[in-house]
Amino acid sequence: MFSEKIVDNLTKSSWIRAMFEEGEKLRKIYGADKVFDFSIGNPDPEPPEVTKDTLKRLVLEDKPKMHGYMPNAGYPDVREKVAIQISKETNVPLTMKNIVMTCGAGAALNVALKAILNPGEEVIVFAPFFVEYLSYIDNNGGKGVIVKSNKDTFEPDINALEASITPKTKAVIVNTPNNPTGVVYSESILKNMAEVLKKKEKEFNTTIFVISDEPYRKVVYDNIKLPSALKIFENSIMVDSFSKSLSLPGERIGYIAVSPYIKDVDLLIDAIVYCNRVLGFVNAPALFQKVIAESVDTSVDINIYKERRDLLYNSLIKMGYSCIKPQGAFYLFPKAFIEDDIEFKNRALKYNLLLVPGSGFYCPGYFRISYCVSLKTIENSLPAFEALAKEFI
Amino acid sequence: MFSEKIVDNLTKSSWIRAMFEEGEKLRKIYGADKVFDFSIGNPDPEPPEVTKDTLKRLVLEDKPKMHGYMPNAGYPDVREKVAIQISKETNVPLTMKNIVMTCGAGAALNVALKAILNPGEEVIVFAPFFVEYLSYIDNNGGKGVIVKSNKDTFEPDINALEASITPKTKAVIVNTPNNPTGVVYSESILKNMAEVLKKKEKEFNTTIFVISDEPYRKVVYDNIKLPSALKIFENSIMVDSFSKSLSLPGERIGYIAVSPYIKDVDLLIDAIVYCNRVLGFVNAPALFQKVIAESVDTSVDINIYKERRDLLYNSLIKMGYSCIKPQGAFYLFPKAFIEDDIEFKNRALKYNLLLVPGSGFYCPGYFRISYCVSLKTIENSLPAFEALAKEFI
Repeated sequence: MFSEKIVDNLTKSSWIRAMFEEGEKLRKIYGADKVFDFSIGNPDPEPPEVTKDTLKRLVLEDKPKMHGYMPNAGYPDVREKVAIQISKETNVPLTMKNIVMTCGAGAALNVALKAILNPGEEVIVFAPFFVEYLSYIDNNGGKGVIVKSNKDTFEPDINALEASITPKTKAVIVNTPNNPTGVVYSESILKNMAEVLKKKEKEFNTTIFVISDEPYRKVVYDNIKLPSALKIFENSIMVDSFSKSLSLPGERIGYIAVSPYIKDVDLLIDAIVYCNRVLGFVNAPALFQKVIAESVDTSVDINIYKERRDLLYNSLIKMGYSCIKPQGAFYLFPKAFIEDDIEFKNRALKYNLLLVPGSGFYCPGYFRISYCVSLKTIENSLPAFEALAKEFI
Repeated sequence: MFSEKIVDNLTKSSWIRAMFEEGEKLRKIYGADKVFDFSIGNPDPEPPEVTKDTLKRLVLEDKPKMHGYMPNAGYPDVREKVAIQISKETNVPLTMKNIVMTCGAGAALNVALKAILNPGEEVIVFAPFFVEYLSYIDNNGGKGVIVKSNKDTFEPDINALEASITPKTKAVIVNTPNNPTGVVYSESILKNMAEVLKKKEKEFNTTIFVISDEPYRKVVYDNIKLPSALKIFENSIMVDSFSKSLSLPGERIGYIAVSPYIKDVDLLIDAIVYCNRVLGFVNAPALFQKVIAESVDTSVDINIYKERRDLLYNSLIKMGYSCIKPQGAFYLFPKAFIEDDIEFKNRALKYNLLLVPGSGFYCPGYFRISYCVSLKTIENSLPAFEALAKEFI
C-alpha cells in the first residue's frame, strides 16, 4: 500500500528505534541521571554569544520582509560573507557565486548528488560512514559503492579505492573529521587520493567529483590544521553545516561551496540551485542565513569537547579498550571486545550504557561513543565502562 | 559531466529565468516603481503581531537547547497544537501522532510522495498546476499524469479523471485554493471525486491517496468555507505551510496531517517520518516550529489580499479581459487575448507588465497575475493593462 522500499528500510533500521526505546525505558526505571546515553550526536554546548546576540538583534530590528523569499541560492550578502571566509581558510578563490545556502548538510548532500548523478552512476563511500549517505545516493538515482578504510588509522584505503573505481564512478564522498571515528584525514592521504582519482579520470575519460562533507570542520583538537578538500581536489564540492560549529542543528542551516576549478562550473552551480528548488528545500531558512553571516569566523568553545575526549579516551585506554585517538568531531570509535557488536551493545545496556554498534556504520566489531554529554556524565559513566570491560578481560 | 536530466530541465525552464532577467533589466532602465511585477508569489503583508511577538519572546527567553535536534517528526507540543487546531477546523479527529512538521510544503510533498510511491506508479495532477509537482513526483520515482480541468470553472474534470485512473494510479494531488487560478474547489466536486476514486479503488483493488496541498487554505474570500479534503477523502494526506497564512515563506515551516482513517496509518506515519530524515530535511526548523505553535489559529489580514483582488478583477473585466473570479489564493488567471501566451507575455513586457504565461502551468492561452504587490502598484499598473487590452480589442 505504501512504498515497499521504505517499509522494508523501516524494518531494517528498527534497531535504532529499539535502542532509543530501550534508553527511554531505562531512564524511566533508573532516572535520567543514572543512564549514560552516548548514542546521539546532538551538540549540547550553547551557540556562541555572537550568534545569539545576532539572532536577538535581527529579531528586535524586525526588518520588513525578513521572513520572505530570497533567491533560491540564498541572500547574496550572506553568500558573499561565507565565500570570503572559506576563501581565507582554504586559499581557494571563491566568490558569492560559488556558495549556495542550504537547509543543513543533509540538504546540501542531496542537492549536490542530484545535480551530478545520472541513473546508475556510482558514488564511493569509505566504511565506516554515516549510513544515510546510502539513502542520499539512492534518492538521487545513484549506486553506493563501499570501500574499506585502513583499520589501523581509519583513513581510506587508497589501493581499495583505486580498485573500486569504474567508468561509472561519478563521485567520492569524503568526511573528515569523520563520523563515526573522529579521525581527521591527513593531507598526504588526501593527496594520494587526488592522484588516484586523476589517473582514473584520465584512464576512463570521466570526471569524478569529491563531495567533501565537513560539518565537523571546526571541531578539531591538538592545534592541527584541517587539510582542505577544496584545495586538494580540483573537482570538489564542499558541504558544510552550522549544526556543530555553532550548535544550531535544529535550525537546518548550511551551504555548498563549489570549486571554481570545475569545468563548466557555472552550469553546475545553476544545476545545484535548481535542485535546491525542485527537491523541495527551496531555500535555506531566511532568519538563520542572516544569523550565521555574522558567525562564519567563529565556533562554540571546542575546548569543551576536547576535555571530554581526553577524559574518555584516557580512561578507556587505561581500562583496556583499544581505540584510535581521534583529532576531531565528538566521537570515539573503540573496538568491541567481541566480534558481535550488537551483542556487545546489549551487554553495555546492562550497565545503562547506550552505545551505537559499528554495524550501524558498516563497520562491525566496533562501537561509537558520542560525547555530547557533560563531563560529569562522563565521570559518572566510567565505572560502567570499567565493569563492561571486566566482563571480557 | 553533470546530471543530463537536470541540465536538460535547466534549459527548458530558462524562460522563467529569462523573464526574471527581463524584469531586472526593465527596473534598471525605468526604475522599480515603473515596472509592474506580477510574476512572483512572494507574500508581502508582514506576519501577524502574535507571530512576531512569539518570535521575540522565544529569542529573548533563550532557553537551553532551543536550537538543538528534536524528534524528526517535530516537537511533540507543537504537533499537539497543530493537531488540535486542524481537528477543530476539519472535524477529523487528529492527535499529535498524525502530524509531522516539515520544512514547508515543498518538503512535505516530497516526503509524502516518497513514503507511498513504488517505481513507475502514477500520480494525477489537474492542469493548470504548480509545475514543480512534476519534479516532486519524478524525484520520488513516480510518473506524473496530467488531467485537464473544466475551463469554465477551473475545477477538475471528473470524467477526465475517471478515464485517467489505471491500476498504477497511487495518488491524486489536489490544490485548493489553487495556484495559478485562485479557484476554490466546491464541496460537491470533491465529493464527486471521492466517489470516482472509491469506485476505481474497488475496481482495481488499489489504494489511491489524495494529497491535498493547502498552503492557501487561510487565503479565502467572500466568507466561503473551504471544504476539507481530510474530511471528504478517507485516504488523505494533507500538506500545509505557514508561508502564506503567516507570511513566513523564507523560513520553510509547514506540516503533514495524515488522515486517521487510512488503513495501517501508523506504518504510513513511520514511513513519512523516516522519509523526512533520509531525504535530508531531517526536521522542520526548530525555532519556527515553536513560533507557529502560538499562531495556528490566526493568519495575516486576508482583507489586504481581497482589496487587491477586487480592484484588479473589476478593472480587468471592465477592460475586456475574461477571467474567473477566484475566491482564494492571491492569483488571477485571465485568458490571454491570443492563443500564444508566450507572445502575449512579451507584448505585456512592452508596458513594463511582468506576467507569467499559462504554459508555465501546463495551460497555454492564459496568464497568471500574482497580486503580492501593493494596492498602489495595482492602481499604477491599470493603464498598462488597459493599453495592452486595446492592442487586441
